[in-house]
Amino acid sequence: MTTITSHEMNFLIFRYLHESGFTHSAFVLGYEAGLYKSNIDGNSVPTGALISFVQKGLQYLEMEANLNDDGTEVDGDFSLLQPVD
Amino acid sequence: MTTITSHEMNFLIFRYLHESGFTHSAFVLGYEAGLYKSNIDGNSVPTGALISFVQKGLQYLEMEANLNDDGTEVDGDFSLLQPVD
Amino acid sequence: MTTITSHEMNFLIFRYLHESGFTHSAFVLGYEAGLYKSNIDGNSVPTGALISFVQKGLQYLEMEANLNDDGTEVDGDFSLLQPVD
Amino acid sequence: MTTITSHEMNFLIFRYLHESGFTHSAFVLGYEAGLYKSNIDGNSVPTGALISFVQKGLQYLEMEANLNDDGTEVDGDFSLLQPVD
Repeated sequence: MTTITSHEMNFLIFRYLHESGFTHSAFVLGYEAGLYKSNIDGNSVPTGALISFVQKGLQYLEMEANLNDDGTEVDGDFSLLQPVD
Repeated sequence: MTTITSHEMNFLIFRYLHESGFTHSAFVLGYEAGLYKSNIDGNSVPTGALISFVQKGLQYLEMEANLNDDGTEVDGDFSLLQPVD
Repeated sequence: MTTITSHEMNFLIFRYLHESGFTHSAFVLGYEAGLYKSNIDGNSVPTGALISFVQKGLQYLEMEANLNDDGTEVDGDFSLLQPVD
Repeated sequence: MTTITSHEMNFLIFRYLHESGFTHSAFVLGYEAGLYKSNIDGNSVPTGALISFVQKGLQYLEMEANLNDDGTEVDGDFSLLQPVD
């Protein structure tokens, strides 16, 4: 299974902050998380990557919440800001 | 479909930065993204939420990459740092 | 005697950081020192104010270090990075 | 005459920020001004150095403002936040 390392996670956030115009936060995170000495090729991270992943994750969780154990759909409540199992 | 707002996204990142001990980055993002005047209840965001969502998203994308159109599994290449469709 | 308040000191530094192109530091100090809700009129602080004050202070200290108690000049050693009385 | 370099100035500010509890600003300035790779011995800068220098500079400027050209004292107006000659 694909898992994400802390370093990759930090890099995704760094890119997100830059793309969102949060230049001060990006600058600080770059140093605090040691990204400037990283060997990740920034160009290999597509624009909007973090949002894409989170959005996909939400769809997946929502889908799971809407399925019974027997695979039938239910009218589940899914909320972003509730604890994830 | 559940979608995530920019504000929720920023808040998830803010929580992640705090949980990861990136206190300087969290402080700066809090002001730069206007989170301190936010009305999101911080306690409603579970620990590790951002990582959970991203991890789920990656599993989902990996699963998709490993399925043919006819639903049969293939030996797909899935890499985190490649462009997402 | 004119004394400087903490708030004025922070403001002088804030201006110096901006004038020196340290935009990230200035942004963070602005919030950390509560300067954005300050009522100091930024325009009343002349460009280069902090450097001027420090430079004057150094001259004064150097002059003092080069005077004997009887007012005669001596060949004093004065160094910026030594303790100030 | 003793003059202060930009690097020394930045270092004095860095120390002031730390001493004042502005840890976020100090962290950011440390990187933005390249102080972490500096060879200034931090221990050689006395506590409260920046404030001392500024305070001395102010006294000096005030004294100058209160002296006529012939050396007699006048009742001068001196204000911190006015342009310095």
